[in-house]
Amino acid sequence: MNPGFTGSLLDRADDARHDEAMVRAMRSDPEALLLEMSGLHPVGAEQGALGWTPLRYTEVRTELALLGRLDGTPRFVALERGVSAFRRSPELFAAITAMSAEDAGTYATARSLVDWHSRHGFCANCGAETMVFRAGWGRSCPACGTDHFPRVDPVVIMLAQHGEGADAKVLVGRQPAFPPGRYSALAGFLEPGESIEEAVARELKEEAGVSVHSVRYLASQPWPFPSQLMIACVGMTDDDALSIDYTELEEAKWVSRDGIRAALAGEADAPFLPPPAYAIAHTLLSRWVAEA
Amino acid sequence: MNPGFTGSLLDRADDARHDEAMVRAMRSDPEALLLEMSGLHPVGAEQGALGWTPLRYTEVRTELALLGRLDGTPRFVALERGVSAFRRSPELFAAITAMSAEDAGTYATARSLVDWHSRHGFCANCGAETMVFRAGWGRSCPACGTDHFPRVDPVVIMLAQHGEGADAKVLVGRQPAFPPGRYSALAGFLEPGESIEEAVARELKEEAGVSVHSVRYLASQPWPFPSQLMIACVGMTDDDALSIDYTELEEAKWVSRDGIRAALAGEADAPFLPPPAYAIAHTLLSRWVAEA
Ligand SMILES: [Zn+2]
Ligand SMILES: [Zn+2]
Repeated sequence: MNPGFTGSLLDRADDARHDEAMVRAMRSDPEALLLEMSGLHPVGAEQGALGWTPLRYTEVRTELALLGRLDGTPRFVALERGVSAFRRSPELFAAITAMSAEDAGTYATARSLVDWHSRHGFCANCGAETMVFRAGWGRSCPACGTDHFPRVDPVVIMLAQHGEGADAKVLVGRQPAFPPGRYSALAGFLEPGESIEEAVARELKEEAGVSVHSVRYLASQPWPFPSQLMIACVGMTDDDALSIDYTELEEAKWVSRDGIRAALAGEADAPFLPPPAYAIAHTLLSRWVAEA
Repeated sequence: MNPGFTGSLLDRADDARHDEAMVRAMRSDPEALLLEMSGLHPVGAEQGALGWTPLRYTEVRTELALLGRLDGTPRFVALERGVSAFRRSPELFAAITAMSAEDAGTYATARSLVDWHSRHGFCANCGAETMVFRAGWGRSCPACGTDHFPRVDPVVIMLAQHGEGADAKVLVGRQPAFPPGRYSALAGFLEPGESIEEAVARELKEEAGVSVHSVRYLASQPWPFPSQLMIACVGMTDDDALSIDYTELEEAKWVSRDGIRAALAGEADAPFLPPPAYAIAHTLLSRWVAEA
C-alpha cells in the first residue's frame, strides 16, 4: 500500500503560475471547479470523495489558489483567512479515511496551502502586509520586495532495529496524547545543518538513548497538519538498552517482527494498537515487516 | 565519501534550549567559545578549520544562539542582523573545500541559523517584531503569541535512469549560470502535499519531459544557501525522449556509466565537468556509478 496522502492525480500546472494570462483563462474556464472547504475541513468528504463546485456559480470573496488540473479541468481553492492550523477532529480523520487515496493527496495540498496563507499575511523580513502572487503559491512584500513561499517542514520518523532475521526487533513508543494502547515510530523535526541520517540518529539518541548506524530510507509522505514532509527510516543499533526521555515519551519498547505483524493485523493479543493506515508510521511498520 | 556538510561532531544539546538556567551556565562557562563569523563568512576557515574565540574575551553586541557542545565545551554563534542570504563567493567555496567535513557541517548549521534570524525579525502572522527564544532556535511574537522556528526547505535532486547494466544511462543537465562544461543532476523544491517520490517525478517531467517510476533514495545533505535539505534520488524511465524546459535548463543529455565515471575522475575526454565534491550531486553520481 502507498503511504497516506500520496497518489493525487492533480497536475500542478506549475508553469501556469508564472503566467497571469494563463491563470486568468483557467479561472474563467466554464469548467473550472472550486474545492468545497469550510475553513480547513473538506465539506462532504465523509461521503467518500472531495466536493467540487463550478467556479462560475460561486461568489468568491477571497483570493484563490490554483491547485492545478484534474480530469482536464482547472481546480482552485479559496484562501480563507483566519482558519486555525490545528483544528483536527475525529470527523476530519473519518473523512480522510473515507476518501480515496487520490483525493486525500489533493486535500493535503489544498489544506497545507490554505493554512499557510492564513498564518503568513505579513512579511517576516520587514513586518509589512504581503500580497498573494504566483496563483496562490507565494506571497510577496510590496514594502521590501521579499518573496515568501509556503513552508514544508521535514520530519524524520524512524525505527531503531536491533538484531537481524528471526531475532530482529524494533523500537516503538507512545506519547501521552495517544489513544490507549497505541504505539508508533519515534519522530522529530529535522533541523538546519542536518542530513536525514543525522536527524534520525539524533532523535533516537535524545528520545530513547539509542545509538544507530546504517540508517536506511523506506518511504515518505506529506502530512498536512499543517505541512510536514514525513521521511521514514530504519537505523541499526548494537545495543538495546533504553534511556527514555519522559518529557517526550510516555513509554517505549522493543517488539519482534511477529509482534509488529500481529499489531498491524489487529490481532487480539498483539503487543500494541497500530497507528492509523493513513499515517506513514503504518507504512514504515508494514514495509519493515515485509523486508524479512 | 559522505555527502558534503554532513559529519559535524557537534552535540546540539537540544534539551538545554528549553532550560534558561542551563543556557546561562553554558554561556558563562569560562571554556565557552564563539564561532568567528563576519556576516555569513567563516573567518579564517581558508586556513583549513573554523575559528573560535573564547566567549569571555568577546564583547557581544547581539543575541547569541547555542550551537551545542563540541569537545566538551559550549559553542555559540552571534545572531548578527542585516547579513545577506546570498553572499556566496569563490572565497567562501574555497574555504568550504579547505575545511574538514566535520567543520563544514558545523558551519552549515551556524550559517543557516544566522541567516534565518537575519531575515525573520517580524511575525508572519501579525507583523509585530519578534524576539529570540529557545537559545536561538526560534523567535516568538509578544503580540500574538505565535512561535516561529527556522525553516528547512526540502529539495529533490535526481537522476532519471534509462536502461540497466551496461546499457544504463542517466540524465544530467546544465543551467545557464553553471561554469562552462559543468553538468549536474536536475533539482527542484518539494511542494506542500507531495512525497519525495512525487516531487522527483514532477520535476523530471516538468524540466525534461521524462516520466519516471520506481524512484529510489540514495543520500541526503544539508545545503546552507540558505537552508535546504537536499534529497538525492534516482527514478527509472522507459522512454529516453527529452522535452527540455529551456526556461529552467540550457541543455540536458544522457550519459553512460563510463561517461559519469570519466567525469568524476576528471578525465580529459569526459563528456562534462562534474559538480564540486561538497555538492550532493557529486555524491549522487558517485553512488550511482558504484551501484553497478
Ligand atoms: Zn517586507
Ligand atoms: Zn504575531
